[in-house]
Formats: sequence, C-alpha cells, structure tokens
Amino acid sequence: MELWVTEYQTPNLGFSCRVKATLRNEKTPFQHLAVVETEQFGRMLLLDGMVMTTDVDEYVYHEMITQVALNSHPHPEKVLIIGGGDGGALREVVNHPKVKKGTLVEIDERVIQAARDFFPALACSFDHPKAEVIVDDGVKFVKEHKNTFDVILVDSTEPVGPAVELFSQNFYRDVYEALCDDGMLVVQSESPFYNRDVIKMAFTGIKNVFPVCKLYLASIPTYPSGLWSFTVGSKKYDPEEVSFVYENPQLKYYSPEVHKAVFKLPPFVKKIVEGDE
Amino acid sequence: MELWVTEYQTPNLGFSCRVKATLRNEKTPFQHLAVVETEQFGRMLLLDGMVMTTDVDEYVYHEMITQVALNSHPHPEKVLIIGGGDGGALREVVNHPKVKKGTLVEIDERVIQAARDFFPALACSFDHPKAEVIVDDGVKFVKEHKNTFDVILVDSTEPVGPAVELFSQNFYRDVYEALCDDGMLVVQSESPFYNRDVIKMAFTGIKNVFPVCKLYLASIPTYPSGLWSFTVGSKKYDPEEVSFVYENPQLKYYSPEVHKAVFKLPPFVKKIVEGDE
Repeated sequence: MELWVTEYQTPNLGFSCRVKATLRNEKTPFQHLAVVETEQFGRMLLLDGMVMTTDVDEYVYHEMITQVALNSHPHPEKVLIIGGGDGGALREVVNHPKVKKGTLVEIDERVIQAARDFFPALACSFDHPKAEVIVDDGVKFVKEHKNTFDVILVDSTEPVGPAVELFSQNFYRDVYEALCDDGMLVVQSESPFYNRDVIKMAFTGIKNVFPVCKLYLASIPTYPSGLWSFTVGSKKYDPEEVSFVYENPQLKYYSPEVHKAVFKLPPFVKKIVEGDE
Repeated sequence: MELWVTEYQTPNLGFSCRVKATLRNEKTPFQHLAVVETEQFGRMLLLDGMVMTTDVDEYVYHEMITQVALNSHPHPEKVLIIGGGDGGALREVVNHPKVKKGTLVEIDERVIQAARDFFPALACSFDHPKAEVIVDDGVKFVKEHKNTFDVILVDSTEPVGPAVELFSQNFYRDVYEALCDDGMLVVQSESPFYNRDVIKMAFTGIKNVFPVCKLYLASIPTYPSGLWSFTVGSKKYDPEEVSFVYENPQLKYYSPEVHKAVFKLPPFVKKIVEGDE
C-alpha cells in the first residue's frame, strides 16, 4: 500500500507527499489536527488539511516571521506571538539576544501538545526561561492588554476557522493598543500568487491603523505557490532598516542582507499592495 | 470523470493540477510532449512529465532568465538562446531595446510547433523581425560559433534526456568561446531546496571557465519548491550591477530593484555555491 497525504492548496491544485506513518490524527475542539511522517519533508503538521510546518523547511517560516521585526525594532524586549502553537516562532524569539520575554498565546492546546510530542526542535522553546505559554483566545488576550508589547507576531492559519478574526480591522486596532508607543506588528499574509484578496485585506486593514505598513516575501516550499508574504505594521520604525546586526550563523534563511532584499517586491506584488489590481 | 495531471517533482512529491482538456500528447524524436488546459494555470506545456511553462506564471521564468543579463550587459546586441523552444525567452530578448538579433536554437521542432499551436503569447516572438529560429542541436551549434554572441541563455530542461550535455564542463567551455570578449552566460540551474547537486554542478562548471560566476533566485509556482535558481557566467561585467534602467511597465516580475535583490542569497543557498555543504 502507498500512503500519500494531499493538501488541496486550491480547489484545482493538489500538493501530495508520500507518507511513512501517521503519528496523530484527531479532531480538537477547534480544528482537525494531523501529524504525519513524510519521506520528503520529515514530520509534517497539518491543521484542517493545510500544511503548517515540516521538519525540513520550518526554518524559513519561523526565521522570517520573527527576525525581520526583531532586527528592525531597536529594543524588542517584550514579544507576543498569537497562534504559533508549534513553538517554532517562539524558539526564534526567545533565542534573540535582545528579547527579555516571549509570550505565546495559542487557542488550541492540542497543537502545543502535538509539538511537544513530535517536534522537539520547535517545542524546546516552551521550556526556555524567557518563554511564557498561555492557552487562550488571542483576540481576547490582545483586547485585555494595553501598551504592553514591543513586537506582536500573528502566526495564524488561513482566514478561515479559528483564524478569521485575526484578519479583521478590529483586531488590528486592538493590536495597535496592545503595542507600546514604538511597537511593531508582523502577520503572515499568504501567497501573492494565489491569495491576493487576503494580502489586500491584511495590508489595507493594517495600513488603516499603523503609520508604517510594508510587505515582505519569503520562499517556503510546503506553502501554496512556494512564495509567502508577511505584512508589517509599525508605529515608528521602518522595518526595511536593520537596527542591529544579528550575527547568528545558525540562521539558514535570514541575514541582514536578506532582510533588505525581501522588501524589494516584484511589480505584480507591488500592484497588489498599491491597490492597482 | 475528474482529470488531473501530476508531476512527480521528486519520487516522494506530487504536484497535481485539475485538467479541462488534453490538447496534445505525443512522443517526439527527443521526448514526451504534452499540452493540457488546466483550471489553475491555463495552458501548460510538459516535457517528459515535467512542467515547462504555463499561461499564468510563464512571465516569471521568461523575464528572469533574460532580463538580468540583458540589463547588466551594456550592449546585448547579439543574443543566443539554447533550448527555450516555447518562445517565451525569445519574446523578452527581441523586445529589449538594445537587442539587434535574437537567435533561438531548439533541438525539438515539435516544441516550437506546440508553442505555435497553443501558446500564442510566447510564439509571437518567432515571427519578430529581430528573431532567428533554428532547429538544431545547441551543443553542436555553440561549437560551430566563435566570438559571436554578447549574451547566451541556456533555457533547458533538467539535466536528463536531451539536456544532459548542457550541464557539462565541455559545453561551458564551448559557450565561453562562442561569446565575445565581454560576453555573459545565464543558465537555469534548478531548485536550491531539491536540486543542490545540479546547482553545484552548474556553478562549479561555470566558475571553472568564467572569471565572474554568480547565482540568483526567482519564485516560480509551477516549478519544484517554487524557488528557482539561475547561474551567470560573465567574462567582464558584474551581473549584480544594472547597466541600463529598462523602464518597461509590461514586466511583472523584473525591475531594476528586483535585479539587485535576487542576488542576496539566503545563507542556506550561499552555502551550496560556496561548497560548504
């Protein structure tokens, strides 16, 4: 018998990986969660059938959702992650020398448990002395905090299911309030090839609230189209400027040079954020 | 009945598109050729089961294999394309204001015919006054020309089947001889995520022959991993420097700003070309 797992990245497009073993397959209170061992990418976490992370390429997403803000904010001491229950973004945050505390707020405790059980390279962050792990609704958590965080990272699924609120104008306003006077927000905002509407929604929503709003890109082979976008909202600092040269030879995708390059958008992406298409 | 076409991008990874119609399906003297109409990407050309080009994303590959050399060589008047029988790279070449003649040498006449029949937006280049289309073996053609071309572009399939010679040291030496004293070569060199050995082979082979050798990247959703590499060999000019600002609002991926950014390699890609892994 041959086992394959297929993500229908769009109704007309399938991405299939040969599977060695199914490690977990459950319905949580919030979503369907699966962990499979694949030949191509090692262990793979899927939520509602969408690939969230894999052993082989997790570094791109986790470095790129964190390091750009961590290295353009001059003092990212208090950092909040909404979602990101696998622990990968938290790992990058707590290992950054300028961070004093990294708080993770994940709505689904079963995601955290799956990471603890099957992704030790990500879940190691949960027990780091700088880490705080909270199981709660990120939307509610953000509302309850004012003027608290230097950086907020929204490491969510697609704007369906539990994540739909995380792409709303009201949420971006609450994030603005939860940030300090010079705070910075980064959200994952999907593929410029397949999800132009999501990018427009996130970009417009953030631009309406934050004085500085910019998009940057990274290449993630297990995400639809292989090209992913992140949107930054900033109260003060320009995220294109590296404030601090973080010489970390462990990083495999991020470097100060890459930091600057990822904001140089191809014209078709520029048009999406400039509202020309 | 549901029709899907699947490219096994690796033995453990399938990329599947829903198909509306099969337009051509034949064994040519050189390879298997298929043209299908897909829901996601419009028309798609496959050679030996590998996606070569599609209506929807062809612009990325065709702009990026051509414009970097065309805009860093100060006088790209005579340009040779080896392979590229779909006509897309030739379109970019003949439309560039500095080019006087674009010569396409494709080994498989049936690829040219498929483009004429099904990809009018690419095949329009064949009848351009600056275009010359030759059905011949590119390896032989290059051997027969000395000191002739300003730019040579190798728009080949993977290093299997008819393209295997196009990744050899001897071929790169013949290309060097076919170029003028300040000539520039660009080859497609596969995915940094899945084809590290191909990149190493192309990069080392070109570096052994050309004084300047650099790699750059572009995001192509229908190619394996979505991230593709191109290797430049140059006798004189630095391909990172834009010599000429080509203000063409038709281009959707390339811009002078993108030109500079695509050479800023993530550390894991730098390691491949520096031979550290």
